[in-house]
Amino acid sequence: MPRSSFSGGIASPTVDVMIDMGNPFLNLTLDGFLKIGTVGALRVAAEETYHCVHRGSISSHKFEHTLKKMCKEGAYWGTVAGVYVGMEYGAERVRGSRDWKNALIGGAITGAVISAASNDNRDKVVVNAITGGAIATAAEFLNYLT
Amino acid sequence: MPRSSFSGGIASPTVDVMIDMGNPFLNLTLDGFLKIGTVGALRVAAEETYHCVHRGSISSHKFEHTLKKMCKEGAYWGTVAGVYVGMEYGAERVRGSRDWKNALIGGAITGAVISAASNDNRDKVVVNAITGGAIATAAEFLNYLT
Repeated sequence: MPRSSFSGGIASPTVDVMIDMGNPFLNLTLDGFLKIGTVGALRVAAEETYHCVHRGSISSHKFEHTLKKMCKEGAYWGTVAGVYVGMEYGAERVRGSRDWKNALIGGAITGAVISAASNDNRDKVVVNAITGGAIATAAEFLNYLT
Repeated sequence: MPRSSFSGGIASPTVDVMIDMGNPFLNLTLDGFLKIGTVGALRVAAEETYHCVHRGSISSHKFEHTLKKMCKEGAYWGTVAGVYVGMEYGAERVRGSRDWKNALIGGAITGAVISAASNDNRDKVVVNAITGGAIATAAEFLNYLT
């Protein structure tokens, strides 16, 4: 069952979200979407807060713009993460083993899917697939290191 | 001791590199540099191979360009990974605990350092620090999921 849990701030509030889609594949994908989407949205919030503090003024127009940007970027990060988690899980099931090659396959498919979905031409889809695979492999290696 | 090990291809050749710098901090940083640098270089190799196959011709000039690009991009990816691994290890030692906050701190410092090293202005350094922290946190969450 996907458990999205975040904690931060002075009092460390913790939010737990649990949704069961009745299928491990869907559960993982939804969990990745929710978790990484939140990280993406929080990134925009932190960046806009810095800009506000720097400028020293808060306007309601700017606030609306920030909220919209948070939703947009959160959805984008969440989609990328959801596709990646689903594809890595799929690769693991098909290959029957857990190693860094799953990350490579998952990252490559994610890069290709996201690139194809944004109407890139064929060359760019392949290049993005290679880049996605490389980034996922690098993250997998870093994960063993730390 | 850092062990860099890669395997791939039909016969799955394995290369093991072991270098001991006599210090866990330096070992981790060097290991991250070597591993992720190789991934970055291989990404360029794969991309250029695709372009060659697509065009259907190989020229020696292009090959030299590819080699140079592999070195440059490998060094860049390696540096980012080395700084990140070192900073995450540092954060773990200072904070005395292992959780996703180390990734956040490591990613933020890495973003700031790499951005400052490329002579960005102050605003951009802060934004890159936020982005670095967000990406590292997202990768850490994904790692728990998969």
